[in-house]
Parts: sequence; C-alpha cells; structure tokens
Amino acid sequence: MAKRRIRLGVSMIGLGYHLAAWRHPDAPAGGNMELPHFVRVTQAAERGLFDMAFLADGVGIRFHDEPKGALCRTSKNVQFEPLTLLSALAMVTRRVGLVATASTTYNEPYHVARKFASLDHISGGRAGWNVVTSVTDMEARNFNRDKAPGYDVRYDRAAEFVEVVRGLWESWEDDVFVRDKESGINYRPEGLHVLDHQGPHFQVKGPLNVARTPQGAPVIVQAGASDQGRELAAATADVVYAAAQTLADAQAYYRDVKGRMARYGRDPDHLKIMPGLMAVPGRTRQEAQDRYEALQQRVDPLVGLAALANYLGDLSGYDLDGPVPEPPNRRMHSRAQIFLDIARRGNLTIRQLYLSIAGGNGHRLVIGTPADIADAMEEWFHQDAADGFNILPPWLPGGLEDVVDMVVPELQRRGLFRTAYEGMTLRENLGVAPATHRRAEARKRAAMAAALGSAAQ
Amino acid sequence: MAKRRIRLGVSMIGLGYHLAAWRHPDAPAGGNMELPHFVRVTQAAERGLFDMAFLADGVGIRFHDEPKGALCRTSKNVQFEPLTLLSALAMVTRRVGLVATASTTYNEPYHVARKFASLDHISGGRAGWNVVTSVTDMEARNFNRDKAPGYDVRYDRAAEFVEVVRGLWESWEDDVFVRDKESGINYRPEGLHVLDHQGPHFQVKGPLNVARTPQGAPVIVQAGASDQGRELAAATADVVYAAAQTLADAQAYYRDVKGRMARYGRDPDHLKIMPGLMAVPGRTRQEAQDRYEALQQRVDPLVGLAALANYLGDLSGYDLDGPVPEPPNRRMHSRAQIFLDIARRGNLTIRQLYLSIAGGNGHRLVIGTPADIADAMEEWFHQDAADGFNILPPWLPGGLEDVVDMVVPELQRRGLFRTAYEGMTLRENLGVAPATHRRAEARKRAAMAAALGSAAQ
Repeated sequence: MAKRRIRLGVSMIGLGYHLAAWRHPDAPAGGNMELPHFVRVTQAAERGLFDMAFLADGVGIRFHDEPKGALCRTSKNVQFEPLTLLSALAMVTRRVGLVATASTTYNEPYHVARKFASLDHISGGRAGWNVVTSVTDMEARNFNRDKAPGYDVRYDRAAEFVEVVRGLWESWEDDVFVRDKESGINYRPEGLHVLDHQGPHFQVKGPLNVARTPQGAPVIVQAGASDQGRELAAATADVVYAAAQTLADAQAYYRDVKGRMARYGRDPDHLKIMPGLMAVPGRTRQEAQDRYEALQQRVDPLVGLAALANYLGDLSGYDLDGPVPEPPNRRMHSRAQIFLDIARRGNLTIRQLYLSIAGGNGHRLVIGTPADIADAMEEWFHQDAADGFNILPPWLPGGLEDVVDMVVPELQRRGLFRTAYEGMTLRENLGVAPATHRRAEARKRAAMAAALGSAAQ
Repeated sequence: MAKRRIRLGVSMIGLGYHLAAWRHPDAPAGGNMELPHFVRVTQAAERGLFDMAFLADGVGIRFHDEPKGALCRTSKNVQFEPLTLLSALAMVTRRVGLVATASTTYNEPYHVARKFASLDHISGGRAGWNVVTSVTDMEARNFNRDKAPGYDVRYDRAAEFVEVVRGLWESWEDDVFVRDKESGINYRPEGLHVLDHQGPHFQVKGPLNVARTPQGAPVIVQAGASDQGRELAAATADVVYAAAQTLADAQAYYRDVKGRMARYGRDPDHLKIMPGLMAVPGRTRQEAQDRYEALQQRVDPLVGLAALANYLGDLSGYDLDGPVPEPPNRRMHSRAQIFLDIARRGNLTIRQLYLSIAGGNGHRLVIGTPADIADAMEEWFHQDAADGFNILPPWLPGGLEDVVDMVVPELQRRGLFRTAYEGMTLRENLGVAPATHRRAEARKRAAMAAALGSAAQ
C-alpha cells in the first residue's frame, strides 16, 4: 500500500483570495479576465504537482454594493465562466485536475452532466465538479425569482440533482462502441442504459448524449459545512473543501464526515477532506509577514465592511474601532458563525475582524517560513484533521508560485508530498475510488446468472 | 468599399454530415468523441480561411430508434458539448470563428450569456451563438416534460431569450475598468448597467458577471426557416444558416429575410445568408461521383428510414421501392416539407428519397470538379441567393480537407474568396455590424446634453 500523502488543490479565484489582491504591486490588475493569467496560474499548479486547480463560481455579481461604493472597489465582479475556462486550460496542461463549480439551484442536471462529461473527455480524465447550492438573492434575481429557495429545498434539490447526474454518467458502458464499419453496428444496444429518473424535483429520461468518460465519472467535490451538506458529502463526494480555523474544529469535522460514510458502504479513505489554507511563505518569518501586510494595508474599509456584510449584514453604521455587534441582518450561511467565533475569540473590533478575514475569508491563515507552513500542514495531516489542503493564494500568480517554489519542496523533503504524478486521471492522483458503473455491473451479473443457469440445465 | 466576397462556414458534426460518414474507410470511427479529430478539422477550416466552424447540438439523443435497430447503427448519438469543445479548440486556432449551438427552450439566458461571453474572451473575439429552439420530445423528456412546447411558445420564448442575452452583454461598458491600484477604484460605477428585465418568460436582474467581450457581443446565428424564425433572424441575427435545394427557393428566402430587416433599421448587408451546401469535389467528375457513391452504398436501410422518420414518421411498414406515401406521422418541422418536395419533384421511392437526403439532409448537394462547385457557389452568390455557404462535409476530416485544398483555391483564383483573414474577430471577418452598446450610448448622450446645457448657461 502506498504511503499516505498530502493532497493539494489551489483556488484560482481571479487575482487571488485576498480582498486587496488586485491592488498588489505584482498583480496583473485586469488578469481576472485575461486568459494568459490563468494559463500561468494553472501551469504553476501543475509544476507544483498539485492534484487540482479549482474555480469557485457564482451566477451573479458576488458582492452586494453594501455599504454603497464598495462594489466598484472590488475586482471579483467579473470572471470567466468556469467550464469554458477549464476546457481551454485543459489544452495547456497535462496532469493537473480541473475542478469547476456549478450550482444545483438554477441549473438542469442534463446540462451539467453533459458539460462535465465533455470536460472529462477534453482533459483526458481530469474533470471535477464542485457541487454547490446558490444561496444569495442576487443570484435568484437572475433566474426568475426574488429570493433564493430555503435551505431544505436547496439541499433536497441538490441531493437529487447529484443522483441524476451520476445516473446520466452511466448511460453508456465503457466498451459499448464496437464501431464495426463492415456490419454497420456502431454500438451494442445492451450497453446503452436509459435512466428514466422520476423524482420530486426532476424527471429526466436520458440517456446522456456523451460517451462514458475517461474517469468513468468526474470527481465530485463539495463544501459540506452544514448538516445536510455533510450528509451529501458522506454519501457522494470524493473531495470536501472544508473551512476550519482550529485543529479541534477541523478534527471534529473530519471525524464527523468520515463517520457518516459507513452507512453508505464507503471506505473513509475514499473521501479526501481538504480544508482551505491561506499559506504565505517567506524566506524569513519577517519577510512572510511583510508580504502579507503589504496586502492588509490595501484593504479599503468599504471593501472590508462589504466582506462582512455578505454574512453579517451591513455594519457601516457602527464604529469601525468598536466591538462587533450582534449582527443586525445575519445571513443564513455557515460562514457567519465562523466570523462571529473569530470576533468573540479575539475580542476584535469591526476593523480587526474584517482585516482578520480579508485574506482567507474565514479559512486558516499561516504566515511564515516554508518549514512553518509544512509544520502547520503536517500537524493537521497527521492528527486526523485533513487529508490535504485547498491552497488559497492571497494574490495570483505570485502567491501560488511562492508555495510551489518554497513549500512544495519542503513537503517533498519530508516525504509528505509526491515527487511525480502517480496517474493520468484526477481520480488516480487523488487516490479516490474508481467510478463504478452500477448499471453495467447489474447487467453483467444478470447475464452471468442466466448463462450459469442454462449451463446447469 | 471592399469587394463583396463569399463567406464560408463548416459544420463539424462528428464524423461528417452523411448518414454513413462513420463507415467511410478513412473516418476515425471513434472520432466523434476524440479531441484530436476536432483539432484537425478546425485547423483545416482555419487553413482554408473559413469564417467559422460550427457545432450543431441537441440536448438529447438526436435520433429516434425508429424503426427499431436504427439507433445502434448511427454514430451521432454521442458528441462533445459544444461550448466546452469550442473553448478547447480556441486554444489551437487563432482566426477561425467558433460557433456553438445552444437551445433557448431548456436553458436560462443568464447561463447562456455568460458562457458565450466567456468563449468570446477565451477566443479573442471569435465566438458565435447559433440560436435554436428544441423541437423533439426526446429532448423534452430530459427536462421535466413529456412533450416539447408548441411552436408559438418556443419562438416567443426564443425572441425574449435573445433580447435578455443581448441586454446582459451590455452590463459593462468597454472602458469601465480603470483598475487604479492607488485609489482603490476598480471600475467607474456609471459604466455598470443593471438590466432589470421583466418579461412574460424571464425576469432577469443582471448585471452579467463577465466583462464586455472583445466583439462587444458574440455573433448571432440562426436557422430561421419558418415565419417567426425569419422575423427573429431579420431582427437580431448576423448570420442565417438556410436550407434550400433550388436557386428559386434560395432567392425567395434571401429576398424575404433581407426585406424584413428595414423595419428594424438594419442594413441588409449586415445579415449574411449562408445556405447549407454539401460540396463533394474530385479531380474529375467521375472521381467526385465515386467518392460520394462510396458513402451512399454504406447507408443501412434502417438508418435511412430513421433519417426520414425524424420528420415524416416511421415509413418502415411501406415498400422501400414503392412511392413515398403521405406521411402518417409528420413532424412539425420545416424540413418535412423540403423532404416531401424532393420526393414529389423526382417521383422518388422511399429508398430513393432516403438516399437523396442521406448526404445533405435536405441541403443542396453539388458533386463535381472544383470548377463545378465554384460555379455552383458563384451562381447563387451573384444571383441574390446567398452571401456565402455553410459547408457540410459528407465525412470528416477528409471531406473538409478536399474543399480546402481544391475548392478554396478555385474561389480565390476567381476573386470570390479572401486570401488572408481581414480581421481578428469573427465580426470583422464576416463584415457584419460592430456590436453597439446601446446603454453606453444613451448614457453618453445624456451626459453630453447635460454638459452642453450647463455650458450654454
């Protein structure tokens, strides 16, 4: 059995995860809509032997203009659509996994199944789908609604959505296409399966009009913070992007989600839990700190307040240097509680709170030497808190290139990280379960039973 | 003023347009799901200086298994999803336009607007959207329905859908992003426009979360055969892919659609009408004919009947070598009438009818020397029947490469076709109107009026 190793993903959000990323002196300020920027970022991830490069997404502007004037001070309002961008990036990379976010709230499973299957073919088996629900009213208003559906409806729909997509990915058996030019038979009819799904949210007949993909099924990624989210992850996910600030929180999450897998007959090792980690390395601790401070100093108070407003409501009526009040208009999102915990733990002012989440948006932040960062990873990795990490570079491409050039070699020296890709597909590199074809297996079992029955006669 | 020249597109449908394409001796029989096949095809189109490469699409299996056994004898059941495939192909081409089909029937305008805007950014201004409605019940059953909506509903929705998408493409002005790192201002707020569309089918607030694209707006392509389709094309399309067998029919169509444009204040030259043309060149007429016959001989009768069944219903109960009956279960599709006209005009048997449409599916077919094919194009081009042609290669990539290597040089010799791309974007190469930004113009007019008013005081 191969040694357990840390998995790494990177979140390629525009010019970086930090609120002030676009103001970094080295940032290509228009890069969030420039292809060469993303080519460079993805190629850096591949040079660093990362398992995957990840694109977050929203189906609408991602910030309220709350307080007013904040929106025009952020760069995250425009971006490439993830599936088109990753299809392009598949052509300039060979091994790194390509994970796109697609919402289950305003999409149709047939479209989503097709597009990810297509990306998996294009990339030679490197596609992953980050399954999310759309929580903001801003997004709802782009899809014939005034408000987002409630939590239960969103998760109920999401669970059925994933079930339909996975079913559609089993439309065609792997070896169904005989393509016999002489006889004119293109495929064996018994290897085509009609899904005929009838559920509360979806009626989808199938079959999918895309052949079985190189991975069998693209990798399923989820965030899974809430109770239903955790259950969905335990049932269906190959990877979870978690958010935790402390070792204890991360361990509790890890134990809980892996513990839920048994009831679905799944091996806990087949779900990789990868908390977000903003890692800021420097040759010295001071250099690392200076790099981070250069960004912190560029956080406009309006933008800081807007980042809080996304979860806690607009706090602009309060004293920036006073305590964080009980939020007047708190959003129903797991991140809201994380923010409040941070504020209460450190007894922070509003300004201190937004500065403390300006980088990682509630994710863990480690600033230090490559050894410091490797220590931080190793601790969580060896103490049942993480199987790997979703790296959140404060700015791009530099913030990722620093991790690749400084932290990855340190992890490799410690034997914690690969020195070459193990496989061709994302599933192989992650070490998650190969995709089974339940319908093909059932058919073959039935055919074998019939053959044995007739042989026994 | 530049000389009027023929526009060329190519339909990259899988292994070719002919029913037996996948059985052609030179066809890569699995190529419809292999990326290198499409790379080769698109690069051939670019080598031939084609305006655009076009991907048809359906959101479901495209053939009935009617008569039974036909489906497994066709190769067109699986394909790449167009937007992902064209995003990948954008990376291995530099000038050829990339046109994807996306249906207005089971999509949301916000998703479609984003994806084409993203493709336009990825390709540097080469994206086109072929606007269709989804007519088959097979597709409806993948989207919570038993039957496709009726004609009027589909077209009404399509017209509003296009309006919303075009509005979303005007969310951001071209020069809105100042990205001033010092002041922290990323964009000028007055250059962001909220659509706030409220219509019978869609309520879409906007803005789009993709910046204004290199073309301003991707090129709009339509088929526009029916009355409402023609009206929609006259109102909004840059390109029409028409279908006509005879010069008279093509002229009547051309005159009608261009005549409808005045009421929308549009210049008739800004809509390029490009009928489908299956061109089969050979060094001699006999060689061309032999090439075509090699495919015709490979049409399985079941597959031929299935091609008719798509429009005329299942004729398998009739004598293949008897006359074409009045169809028992005719589909509501403009192609049904074209098929019947062909049958009546030639007094064809069922077998003769399916063989006559096995290649071009009702589109014009020209088999001959490069001069013959150039003559056929020139006649329609000079007699107000066409601005160009959508080439339907019977098989791929060979059928396209023959046109590129034999017909294109002949057209160039006659001065009918470009010898180098004129521009960088698809709009520039097609010679259609630049995309205006109506909202930006209105804002700037108002600002200028205000300035003049205050100067006059």
